[in-house]
Formats: sequence, structure tokens, C-alpha cells
Amino acid sequence: MVGGGQGAYFASLHRAAMRLTNRFEIVAGVFSSSRQKSQDAGQALGIAGERVYPSAAAMAAAEVERKDSIDAVVIVTPNHLHFEACRIFLEAGIPVICDKPLVHQVEDAETLRRIAEERNLFLALTYTYLGYPMVRDARDRILAGELGEIRFLYAEYLLEWLAPGVADLSDSLAWRGDPAKAGPTGVVGDIGTHAFILLEFLSGQRCTQLSAKLSTRVPGWRLDDNCVVQLEFNGGAEGLLWASFAAPGHRNGLRFKVVGSQATLEWSQESPEVLHFAPTNGAERIYRRGQSDNEAQTLACSSLPAGCSEGYLEALAVLYADFADALSAGNEWRNATAVPLPDVHEGLRGVELSRVCLQSNQSRSWVEFPPVRTPTAG
Amino acid sequence: MVGGGQGAYFASLHRAAMRLTNRFEIVAGVFSSSRQKSQDAGQALGIAGERVYPSAAAMAAAEVERKDSIDAVVIVTPNHLHFEACRIFLEAGIPVICDKPLVHQVEDAETLRRIAEERNLFLALTYTYLGYPMVRDARDRILAGELGEIRFLYAEYLLEWLAPGVADLSDSLAWRGDPAKAGPTGVVGDIGTHAFILLEFLSGQRCTQLSAKLSTRVPGWRLDDNCVVQLEFNGGAEGLLWASFAAPGHRNGLRFKVVGSQATLEWSQESPEVLHFAPTNGAERIYRRGQSDNEAQTLACSSLPAGCSEGYLEALAVLYADFADALSAGNEWRNATAVPLPDVHEGLRGVELSRVCLQSNQSRSWVEFPPVRTPTAG
Amino acid sequence: MVGGGQGAYFASLHRAAMRLTNRFEIVAGVFSSSRQKSQDAGQALGIAGERVYPSAAAMAAAEVERKDSIDAVVIVTPNHLHFEACRIFLEAGIPVICDKPLVHQVEDAETLRRIAEERNLFLALTYTYLGYPMVRDARDRILAGELGEIRFLYAEYLLEWLAPGVADLSDSLAWRGDPAKAGPTGVVGDIGTHAFILLEFLSGQRCTQLSAKLSTRVPGWRLDDNCVVQLEFNGGAEGLLWASFAAPGHRNGLRFKVVGSQATLEWSQESPEVLHFAPTNGAERIYRRGQSDNEAQTLACSSLPAGCSEGYLEALAVLYADFADALSAGNEWRNATAVPLPDVHEGLRGVELSRVCLQSNQSRSWVEFPPVRTPTAG
Amino acid sequence: MVGGGQGAYFASLHRAAMRLTNRFEIVAGVFSSSRQKSQDAGQALGIAGERVYPSAAAMAAAEVERKDSIDAVVIVTPNHLHFEACRIFLEAGIPVICDKPLVHQVEDAETLRRIAEERNLFLALTYTYLGYPMVRDARDRILAGELGEIRFLYAEYLLEWLAPGVADLSDSLAWRGDPAKAGPTGVVGDIGTHAFILLEFLSGQRCTQLSAKLSTRVPGWRLDDNCVVQLEFNGGAEGLLWASFAAPGHRNGLRFKVVGSQATLEWSQESPEVLHFAPTNGAERIYRRGQSDNEAQTLACSSLPAGCSEGYLEALAVLYADFADALSAGNEWRNATAVPLPDVHEGLRGVELSRVCLQSNQSRSWVEFPPVRTPTAG
Repeated sequence: MVGGGQGAYFASLHRAAMRLTNRFEIVAGVFSSSRQKSQDAGQALGIAGERVYPSAAAMAAAEVERKDSIDAVVIVTPNHLHFEACRIFLEAGIPVICDKPLVHQVEDAETLRRIAEERNLFLALTYTYLGYPMVRDARDRILAGELGEIRFLYAEYLLEWLAPGVADLSDSLAWRGDPAKAGPTGVVGDIGTHAFILLEFLSGQRCTQLSAKLSTRVPGWRLDDNCVVQLEFNGGAEGLLWASFAAPGHRNGLRFKVVGSQATLEWSQESPEVLHFAPTNGAERIYRRGQSDNEAQTLACSSLPAGCSEGYLEALAVLYADFADALSAGNEWRNATAVPLPDVHEGLRGVELSRVCLQSNQSRSWVEFPPVRTPTAG
Repeated sequence: MVGGGQGAYFASLHRAAMRLTNRFEIVAGVFSSSRQKSQDAGQALGIAGERVYPSAAAMAAAEVERKDSIDAVVIVTPNHLHFEACRIFLEAGIPVICDKPLVHQVEDAETLRRIAEERNLFLALTYTYLGYPMVRDARDRILAGELGEIRFLYAEYLLEWLAPGVADLSDSLAWRGDPAKAGPTGVVGDIGTHAFILLEFLSGQRCTQLSAKLSTRVPGWRLDDNCVVQLEFNGGAEGLLWASFAAPGHRNGLRFKVVGSQATLEWSQESPEVLHFAPTNGAERIYRRGQSDNEAQTLACSSLPAGCSEGYLEALAVLYADFADALSAGNEWRNATAVPLPDVHEGLRGVELSRVCLQSNQSRSWVEFPPVRTPTAG
Repeated sequence: MVGGGQGAYFASLHRAAMRLTNRFEIVAGVFSSSRQKSQDAGQALGIAGERVYPSAAAMAAAEVERKDSIDAVVIVTPNHLHFEACRIFLEAGIPVICDKPLVHQVEDAETLRRIAEERNLFLALTYTYLGYPMVRDARDRILAGELGEIRFLYAEYLLEWLAPGVADLSDSLAWRGDPAKAGPTGVVGDIGTHAFILLEFLSGQRCTQLSAKLSTRVPGWRLDDNCVVQLEFNGGAEGLLWASFAAPGHRNGLRFKVVGSQATLEWSQESPEVLHFAPTNGAERIYRRGQSDNEAQTLACSSLPAGCSEGYLEALAVLYADFADALSAGNEWRNATAVPLPDVHEGLRGVELSRVCLQSNQSRSWVEFPPVRTPTAG
Repeated sequence: MVGGGQGAYFASLHRAAMRLTNRFEIVAGVFSSSRQKSQDAGQALGIAGERVYPSAAAMAAAEVERKDSIDAVVIVTPNHLHFEACRIFLEAGIPVICDKPLVHQVEDAETLRRIAEERNLFLALTYTYLGYPMVRDARDRILAGELGEIRFLYAEYLLEWLAPGVADLSDSLAWRGDPAKAGPTGVVGDIGTHAFILLEFLSGQRCTQLSAKLSTRVPGWRLDDNCVVQLEFNGGAEGLLWASFAAPGHRNGLRFKVVGSQATLEWSQESPEVLHFAPTNGAERIYRRGQSDNEAQTLACSSLPAGCSEGYLEALAVLYADFADALSAGNEWRNATAVPLPDVHEGLRGVELSRVCLQSNQSRSWVEFPPVRTPTAG
């Protein structure tokens, strides 16, 4: 693990999810840029002192030499440090699991893509929401044609933390308004990407062009905190995406509505155990995780019976279990999982999203979205 | 009443709402262009034969001469006949209640506005959804500042009837795809206007420019059946409006979400008795019609106790009760109601919405929305 | 109409429901025991002075002599005056529509039953909740076996108005705690009966014995304000009924849950437009009034399209439309409606419920519930 | 750990919850009565071969001699083996965490109580639902008087698995109908106890008498599968409990409704993240885990931010974290946790519940419920 020292909240969730899978063990790491903090954190995690390293470079160099070398590295540093860490481990031939977003600049994402592809190396992004069983159930139903032809894809991702203003933000939030740390966009890159990747995952379609409006609704914020993005997809669907940091009442308000010719399907991250399936002029159906009418794959990635709620950690654990499957498959990692992994191509698209939205917003016009370079499953 | 012969479904709802108010009596009319059908309908409604007229012109001419002349006319003809009927009665000095949309062409709306204003005549549109007590409760809370500064206005109006395709549409639906009868737009003019007028009503702000994408998602449909409209308002709010004729599972799916700096307020037409009020980082509140914490006006337009549901007809009856109040106030009609009536200005804005959306859609760019000519309450 | 002078709230709802049906006209009445008040109320309702009577007896005597005699009388007096009024009109051969409860004493109910049956006269009770289309949809599904064998019937009817205490009750509520006016029980007779009649209506089964606990949870209240009743039915189902006057947060909280061997069906009066149908280990279905998968009868008693809410008044109007159908059928009134009318037998059972519950509560044991004397549909 | 060999589902949940807390390590065990299976399971869990024992007795004898002895034992055997295992470890002075129900016979529960109390030993039951943060939030609000005086306590616990009949039950369900394995009652002892313990936990009141009806609704089942229990409590509250194994549509349908003089509080296990707080005649409030208006203790036992759902495993982990706190406190374990632990007294009450319900059901009358022998917190 690189990053994730004491007090690093999201890293602690990653570790909890790994414990849930019972398939990962953290045996080496760089937990802080401060040597002492890193040692302390390593000790608290029960890691041998010799495998707590001063830097990613040192870690990569030492680990490739060991017989009991790490199988993969999990990178949970601040976002602006992702690039260097990813590059170092990929070049050392070590598979990478990286928190999203991959990087800030399209060029950097391209560099990582090139390295990963040359070596057929696994680089996966933790797009947590792709791990929810009912999100996967939705995807299977959509791809199986249960909704008919897909006509419209709507997603919203609303948060509330910025609504009270910039005055009293904690450090863990304030950096999201600092272009040096957050990258070229605010809400687009931070959470808009989640919604965007989700729509492509669900539909199996790729965005071809978009029209975005980015705005700053909260005085004093230095990046966008609200975005509306209109979308067109290569499979004929249209779409709409709305994201905000400043919508009171939305704790983690990611939801989607997929409109087909025969039915509409809805899901909300705050009630992740159910899908609403509504046909024209007939009873709505509420599909619930863990029941006999789930898609086969849904049951496979479900760990508790229906009625005993799974939540956010279980979703993240589903992703990590996928990663474990992929890592076990070696060169065949691409075909080791039931759904396509959020790999370096998804990471690249996430970065491109920010660039294209900025461009559309400035020109107040529609802009093309680049296609995926190398065809992969999707 | 002009229009609304036997089998005219919406006219029967208007009559039911009038009966609910107990303040209207239908005493004269032109119920059909066929003389016989008109007579039959008049008889079924218990109207004196001499006051069943062959045409709007004949009716206006005769009624103004009577001592017991009608107090107002309700126009529920097909939309493309609204203009002539409205013009005739306004010119005869008779107040008009007209089903929305007012007309199809901005020029016609302007003509009616000019006539009505010159004579200070009441011309009201039946924008039904403005009659819901909890919509008014929302408006009062917003204008009183309970949400803080208004930052974003979202509305969606989704219907499902076109989703199965154009093949088996009933006549009462098929005309909505015929430009000669439906006007220049499909979904925008038919239901987008409801959502648009609602957002202006709720916020007290006026749209200043918009960017619209109109599309036809259902093969064979001749007008737009899906629209996404981005909005900017004169009070600083931004907005988003999505409407569709082809979203399965949405029976009459009008809903709004108003995002303020302190709270978000949501309402859905299919659960019209409640408002969801959600502050940042604290318990959501569910306001329910008929309770002690309603705004004063809400209770005044509420007829049943909390827990005994009111519905669509009661909302329409609230509008008609407003109209009765306004009609009773004579020249002072503008100040006779607790909320501004949906008058000729709102009718005009509804027509302009179609024009501006078309223009934006064709140019794929933002277009200015004309301001209200004569300042009225709002 | 007997009762329902100015300010009588429930009578005004009855009149609104009658107007909604468009099949009733109020042409005669006794609106108050005060002659002047009665005249004033009659005048406000537009009734000819000569047909505003000083007493029920005078009204019955005069009306039977008229050629344009009333077709039926609606009795909305305070409950303790029901018996005399019902008796007078029945003896005069005039059909009666009476607000529930019919009377307070079983003997009085028996008397009315005897008179009504001897003359084959229509006496219907306004058990409003039987008029909801989705309640009828539930009944049809249950009787058609869609739930499998019915194993358990649960109903709760919770109100909140007594929770704050007896100190500040309005007159329209306070009388419910006065045994002279409310009858021998409080919550049982007032709202428990609604829930009880509803369970029998839904299941087509009759209660055979019960065990009741009546209690007074609010200091100073003179009758029961909370009851729990365990039930056994002649068709093999068991049941449970809970009612209260003092459950904060329940505006008009009538709901039921019918448990069958294959599915459970739920409905709540505060969301009356939907039924929840939940099978074992599969997607729940939400049936919505006005859709293609409603039972045939449901659509017949539904007046608005799905998505345009009907509410409490529409339910009462469905009952009144049934009454109109029955009255039009003359001697064949029993077979004139799609569902059995809440007739004098149901009125009698409502009265017996109070007696049997009291007896069970005093003996802390199970008590037999008398069967219906004359078999009628149900 | 005693019990919980390969394939033991609930034991795997206990282990997952322990991993979540990061405060337990399984270092010894008896995982099966088959020596080989036990060894295999131990090996799969990474336990040293020498600490995989052939029997509870052998384990207790060996572990008390070790310097690195276990701190506590987790007993997840089939229920009818609980007694012996608990007795052995308690007599060896080793704290016990036991799956509920404690035992089947009141005498056995008394024996364990006596041993535990004599040695001041910790014996905790895994009443999972007491671990949900919002259940604890409810308890704090109730005890703080936010609902006013508590007047009525309702709980239901409905499951569906038995509804299709006894023919195709899996072994993991079928034993619940076998008196030799399930104890003297079916639904009462299995899930009724959860609801019962929950009501006492929430209210801080103890049941003093009850009237129960136990029935068998599913043909061929050999114990009760449905129970209705009326309750009276020492603090003046009344209550009602309904539980069933055969209610389709209820996956794990535990819910409660606590009625106070000022507000009603509701919670449902299938939506465990929220509390509904409804005052008389005013807006309902939806409290959500992880927000600023949670009770202090709620936030302390909450691990994810509001909006990122916690579920069943997190609730069980909260209990295990309590156990860890208590174990760390040594002799002071009783005061080491923010809420009273479900200890041997609760275990005893759960067993007494079955006995008292059986007695009430047979006599069709009210029966006294014995008080807690030694006053403990609660």
C-alpha cells in the first residue's frame, strides 16, 4: 500500500474492504512522506519494519527483488501523487490498484495506459459504485434487453458538504477546491466521473459528444461545484448528468434512471439493495438483492441473504474480490471477471471527461469525446 | 363553456373541479362544432336550449346583451382553436379561463395580451399544478428564505404513453404529434411548459436564457418527444428541465427539486400531499398538507384534514376557486388572490418557451429568453 | 338530508362527494334541531323553504306524500340520534344512507335490521374506506386466490389527536370520550369498526371469535383510546387489529396487511393509490390505480388516469355512486353493485364488535362473535 | 471458536464481523464434532494445529493452562449444544460470547446465570439487532424523553421462508421445526425473542405479563410458526408483538414502532440507516445515521459517513466491538460499554419468553413474566 497513513480515512475503508474479502494481506508499504509517520503506521498495521519503505521508488525496487514479493500495490495517496506512484510500479512490472481519479492530465493518463498495455499489466481503479450487486444486476438486465432499446441515460450525483460555504471546510474537503491538488475541474473530476463511468458501465455504450455547463454556485470556491452535462452515446442513447457539491440533503446522492423503450430502471446509492423496474402501464417491480429473480452474477457477488443489508463496504469488497480474481489469473486477467474491470481505459476516460467538459463549457457548445483507443470489453 | 362536448375527457375534469368549488354554474356554451352534438351536450348538462350557441362569436354577441350574462367563459376546445375563441370573448369584454397552452404562435399570444391588458381583463390559464396546496407551501417557504439563497432549480416531467410507439395511439394522444394541431413543438409545448411555469412560480425568478436539446426518441413521431433544457434566471439561479413522452413507469411524473444554500425542497405530483425539506447534515422533514406547520395560505386552500388525501381534482378546484375570487373582485382581480394567477403573461411565456427552445436546439447554443413586458406580480 | 347544518364538517364532505358523482341532488332536509338554523342551512343549500322540515318525523310524513318525493335520505346527525332517524324513514319506506356507526346498542341495530329486511329496504352505511378503488382491487385479488390461502389478516387504524391530552380538545373531538354520545366504547366503536369491517370485506370471511384488550392510555379520557384485538375467522384465517386515538404521527393511519400462502398484500389509507403485492423470494409489485393490470372493477370505479391522484373524496363518491346504482335498481338493489354494499348487517356487526370487545376485555378471555343472521353476499 | 466449521453460514458472518472490528483473532477452536472436519476448518482459518481441539472440554482444559490463553470463546454450535459448551467455558473461567438463544430450558439458563454471576464472568449473547446505530439512537431518544411518556411498544418480526410449505426446506431451515433441536417453541424462540429483547432494550422497561397466541399456519409444521403476544411492562407501557415464519415478502422483516405521548418513533431492519420520528400535527423527521443530530453514542458506533450505507455486518461488528471493550475492562466489564450488553439475564429472559408464551397460549389467558433476579443496568 502506498499512502494511507494513520488518519487517512478512505485508506481505512480500503483496508476494511480487503479484510471483508479475506483475500488480501498488507505486507509492505509507504504510508507517509514522513519516515517516522510511515514507520508508525506500518507498525500499527503489523508490517515488518524492513518492508516499510521511504518512497514508492524504493519499495518497487526492493519488492521486485524479493521471493515473497507483493502481488499488487494499492495506491491511496493524494490524487496529485498518483501519476508518479503508478508509473514506478507499472515500470517495475507490479500490478496497480489505484484510487480514482487516475491522474489530472490526459497526457499522464496516456503515459500510464501505454506502459500498462505494453506489459499487459493490470491497473484497476476503485470506482466503488461498480461493485454494488444491484448495479450489476441493472447492467445485466439492460444488456439482456429487458428494458427494450435504451433511449435515455440519466445520472445525478449530489453532495451537500459545500453548501454551507467555504469558511469552515476541513482539510479533507478544502483541497478539492485547490486546482493544484484537485486538477482542472472540481465537481466534474471528483464525482461527475463516477456518474459518467457508471452510465457507460450500465449501458455498454460510449459517450461520443457532450455539452457541459460548469458553474460555481458557492461564493469563494475556486473550481466548479455544479455541473450539468448533456451526452450522446455511440449506441444511440442520449443522456444527462447532474452533479453538485452543494445540494443540501444529499449525503451521497448518486442515482441513475435508465429509460428504455419498454421499461425504466432506477437505482439510488443510498438505498443500494433495490432496483426499481417500471414498465409502461403496469405494476412496478422492486428487485431486491439476494432473491431468486436476481441475475446469476448478482447472487455470485452477494454475501448476505436478502433482508440483511449490505452497504458501501461490501460494494468495495466486491471490487477487491474482482481484483483478487484478476490477479490470480495472471496474463489472463482481462477475462477473469464477470464484468469488465474499471481499468486504465476507464481511468483515461475519467480524465478526458474533465478536459472535454471544460472545453464545452468555455465554448458553450457541443464537443466530441474521444473513443476508446484499444477495444476492450465494455 | 366553449368546447367540452360529450366524451371530452379533460372538460369533464374541469366541470368536476367546478362542482367541487361549488362556486360555478355552467349556463351557456358551444360544446361542439356540430350543432346537434352541441345541443345534445348542452341538454345533458341541463343548459337552457337558447343558451347553447352555434359558435363562439354567436355566444359572445348574445351573452353580452343579456342581463344574466355569463361572468366568464371557460375555453376547453382543441388547442389550435384557442386563439379565435379567446380573442372573441376578450373583445366582447368577457373574462376568459383557457386551458393551457394559450396558443401556438408568439404573435397570437401577443395579440391576446394586448387586448386583455387594454381592457384590464382577466385571462387565466389552467396550469393545474399551481393549484396543489403543497406546491404553494413550497413557494411560500422559498420566498420566505427558508432554503437560503436559491442556487439551482430542477424539474422533470416524464410521461410514458409514447414509449410503446406510434402505431396504436388513440386519437386523444396522436394529435400531439401533428404540428398542425400541437404547434411547433411536441413535448416542450405540451408538458415542458408546465415544468417551466412551475419553476418560475416557485422561485419568483424569471428565465433569462436557455440551452435546449430537443430530440425524437420514438421512431415515427413527428415532433420532439424528449427535451433537456438548461436554464438561467434573473435572480441568479440556474436550472435544468427534462421532459419526455416516452419514459416507461412515469404515469404523470412531474417533480421538482429546489436547491438552496441551506436546504433542498422536493415535491412530486404523484405524491402531492407532502414536501421533502432536507437541510445540510440534519434530519429531513416531511411536511404534510393540513398540519399546523403548513404556511397559512396552504391551510386556506386545503379542504380535507391531513391524512385524508386530496388529489388532482382538488388542485384544479383550488385554481378555480382563485378564479372565482378574482372574478368577484372585478377590476381589482389582480390583487384578489394569495398567489399570482397564471395570467396572459404566463400564457405568453409558455408560447415563447417553444420558440426559444426550437431556436436553441437548431443553433446548438444558448438563446435569450424575453423578459415579461409589463411587470406583474410574480 | 338529516343533520349537516352549517359548520358540520363531515356532512360537507358527504355533499362534496355527492356533487362529484353528479347523481344526487339535495332537495329536502332537517339540518338542525334549531328551526332557524335549519332554515338558514337549507337556504344556503338552495333548498325550497317548504322542504326544510322541523324534524325527521315531519320530513318523512310530508315527503312520502309528495309526487316528487325524495329517493333516499342521508343521515349525518350526531351518532346518538341515528336510531330514531333511521327508524322513522325506514318505517316510512324511504331508503336510508347513514353515517357509521349505525347505532350504539345491539338491540337498536337489531330493530333496524328487522324493519329493513321486512320491507327489503336499502339501508347503507358510509364505510368510506370500502370505496377506495385499490381496496376493491385488493379484495378481488384475494378472492381470486392471487395470494393463495389466506392465513393472517392484519389491520391497524391509528390516529393522533388524543395524544396531547384531554385538556384542549375541540367539541368535535371531545364528545368521542363521552359514553352518552359515543356509545359503550371509544376507539373500538369509532375507528376499530372501520378496520374490522375492512378485514371482513377484503377476505370474504367472518369473524367467529376474538380476544380484545381495551385500555385508556391518555389520562382523563373516559373510554378506551387504544385497543388490540386478536381475531379468528370462519374461513380459517387468523387476524389482529390495533387501533388508537393517541399515536402521534398518524394523521389517518388505516392500513392492512393480508398474508397468504403465496403473497402478502398491503395498503395504506394515506397512500391510497397503490397496493404492495409481495411474493415469496421475488420482486415486489406495486399496483397503481388506473393501469392496465388493475382488476376490471377497479377501473370501473376509477375516474382519473393513473398518475393523477384520487383521494378521500373520490372514495366516498365511489360509495355514493354505488348507492345511486342500488337506488336505481329498486327491489333488485342487493345485486346492483359489483361489491356487497355495507348494509344493515355490516351496521349490526359494527355495533356487535363493541359489545364483544368489551366482554372479552372484562373477562380477559376469548369471546364468540355472533354470525350474520341472514346470509348475504360477502 | 466452538462450532462454525466449513459451510456454517452464520459463523462465517461472525468471523466477517470480527474482521471488520479488527480487534479479534481466532487462535483456537473446535469447529466440528468430526475430528477431521475440525482440523480442516482450523487449517483453512490459519490456526495452529495444536489449538484445534476435539471437544469443548479439551479446549477449555488446555487453554486455561496456556500463557497465551484465549481471552474469550465464541460459541456458534447448533443451539441444543449451547448449554454444555457455555457451562464448560464458564466453569473454566473463560468469558463466553454465545449465539442466541442461550439454551432451551429455563433451568439450564438459570444454571448458567448462577455460574456466570458467581464468578462475575462475562457471557454475552449476539442479539445482532441491538448493534444497529439507529436502534441505539432510538433508545437514547426514548430514554431522554424525546417521545414524552412511552405508552405503547409495537414490534413485528416477519419472515417468509416457511410460506411455501415444509416440503422443500433445506436442512438449515428444517431443524427449526424439530422440537428436539429448536426447543419448545418455533417462531417465539427463534425470532420472537429478538423482537422482545429489542422492546425491552429500547424502552428500559421490563415485561410483567403477557397474553400469547401461538399457532401453526403452515400445514405439516410441528411447532408454532405465527405468534401474537400482548404485553404489559413495569414502566406502564403496553405492547404488542407479532412474529411469523410464513409472511411472503418479508425477507428479514423486523420493525418497531414506539408510541409516546409526544411522538412516535419507527425503525425497520431492512432500512436500518434511518429513524422516523413523527410528532403530533407537525412535520415528520427522518434521522439518518452519521449526521450532526445523531445522539453522541450513535456517531461513536458508526463507521461510515452518512450516505454510505452500513448494514447487517456492521451492526454485528458494533456488538463485537462492545464485547472487545468489555473484555478489555476485566472485572469492570459491566460498565465498559455505552449500552447494557445482552448478557446472561437477557439470555434467560429469552428462554423464559418461550415458556411463558406456551403457558399463556395453552390457558388462553394472561400470564406473569418473572422479573430480572439481580438488578442490572437496563
